[in-house]
Amino acid sequence: MDFTKPETVLNLQNIRDELIKMEDSIIFKFIERSHFSTCYGVYQIDNPHLTLGSDFHGSFLDWALMHLEITHSELRRFESPDQTPFFPDKLKRSILPSINYPKLLANYSNEVNYNDKIKRTYIDKMVPLISKIDKDDPNNYGSIASCDIECLQSLSRRIHFGKFVAEAKYQSNKPLYNTLIENKDVQGIMREITNSAVEAKILERLTTKAEVYGVDPTNSEGERRITPEYLVKIYKEFVIPITKEVEVEYLLRRLEDPN
Amino acid sequence: MDFTKPETVLNLQNIRDELIKMEDSIIFKFIERSHFSTCYGVYQIDNPHLTLGSDFHGSFLDWALMHLEITHSELRRFESPDQTPFFPDKLKRSILPSINYPKLLANYSNEVNYNDKIKRTYIDKMVPLISKIDKDDPNNYGSIASCDIECLQSLSRRIHFGKFVAEAKYQSNKPLYNTLIENKDVQGIMREITNSAVEAKILERLTTKAEVYGVDPTNSEGERRITPEYLVKIYKEFVIPITKEVEVEYLLRRLEDPN
Repeated sequence: MDFTKPETVLNLQNIRDELIKMEDSIIFKFIERSHFSTCYGVYQIDNPHLTLGSDFHGSFLDWALMHLEITHSELRRFESPDQTPFFPDKLKRSILPSINYPKLLANYSNEVNYNDKIKRTYIDKMVPLISKIDKDDPNNYGSIASCDIECLQSLSRRIHFGKFVAEAKYQSNKPLYNTLIENKDVQGIMREITNSAVEAKILERLTTKAEVYGVDPTNSEGERRITPEYLVKIYKEFVIPITKEVEVEYLLRRLEDPN
Repeated sequence: MDFTKPETVLNLQNIRDELIKMEDSIIFKFIERSHFSTCYGVYQIDNPHLTLGSDFHGSFLDWALMHLEITHSELRRFESPDQTPFFPDKLKRSILPSINYPKLLANYSNEVNYNDKIKRTYIDKMVPLISKIDKDDPNNYGSIASCDIECLQSLSRRIHFGKFVAEAKYQSNKPLYNTLIENKDVQGIMREITNSAVEAKILERLTTKAEVYGVDPTNSEGERRITPEYLVKIYKEFVIPITKEVEVEYLLRRLEDPN
């Protein structure tokens, strides 16, 4: 996807193709995470066994994610319209020259940030499904946080892609959406953005992908790293609903930006 | 693999199981890289279009890799015996408490570092195979460097795992290896560490994995992201030979550490 070309970015078919590619990335990253235990110590706020600095309050994951985001911000990561930071207040200036992206989304779009919810859902709901062993594992805090960051960044990109979906749908029928927005008709907007056939297809595709990617193809007797059940559950109960929340919030504010 | 338990780490079957898992990680990371163009600007030394700081000489990839390694070092990454830094002189102290790993490898093992060679081979030989489009792409320097770093770290871990292979083989037949080492018999050592049947099996497995993972299983008409040909070539011509170089260098120095 080329964010310098608005006509390609706001094309629903291109968006869907990109979402399909992201499914694979998310699955690959879940597989990497699946090799480790749940490891609650990584997520514990102010874990007493760690010294993260007296002015820092949060989990080890927060600490690692914040520091990686600072480095990534210097690599221009968060100037890209498909990237949403977990620690927007901590970012540094990029050392790469800025890209003058054309305007793709409404000017408040950076404020639509569901990363706190994504992180909470990931830790509380997804990790227990992905990981096969439920225990702490202090020797692997670094490796586990690295896997978690990869998973979170992929999930965040997938879910915030809802903004492009929302903008494309808005552009395709402004009068309809303007009325719904003026009436603050959340249910009406939700109905318009929901495409049950597309959602069913996503879950069907995930079932196949989990079956194929979930086990080493050269060792069919081997351990299953991911199962269709939990992958479908993660998308159905968390990824798709939070994506729709992003879409609804984005659309509800759409009249703030008349351009 | 639990590096606090030497008896599990230096078991050849466990090492091979770990190497098989790494194949999947490497393939997944190659697939992520395959979505981008070759992008020589990321690898160009002192790229005149970038301002990486007057005291820094290297490519954008070097800059990004160095800064990520600094952050990773604070997460204790390089205390783990299976991690080898690309910029060993730049690392910081970990903020996590140290793990007292038992001694697994000879005390000079950190000096056996093939990362410069791995990076050069990756840029010159592997990227042109993995990427389908040969052009620069300044809008994606950050994303591409991030993918490259993932690929390089996976390749580095895989290749330097040769040290565990070498140590396990040494432990299994000290008198034989001591004689070969005393005679500086590189060819003899190379002959002892080469298991052609195992190598053939690796390439066979990679062919199957590239066939399965290389294309979206829900869209068999879709683009092939990786092919068995190039994956086998990368392992046969680069990964396996450099791993053996690691093993030979490690073994040639083995008498420096009598314990």
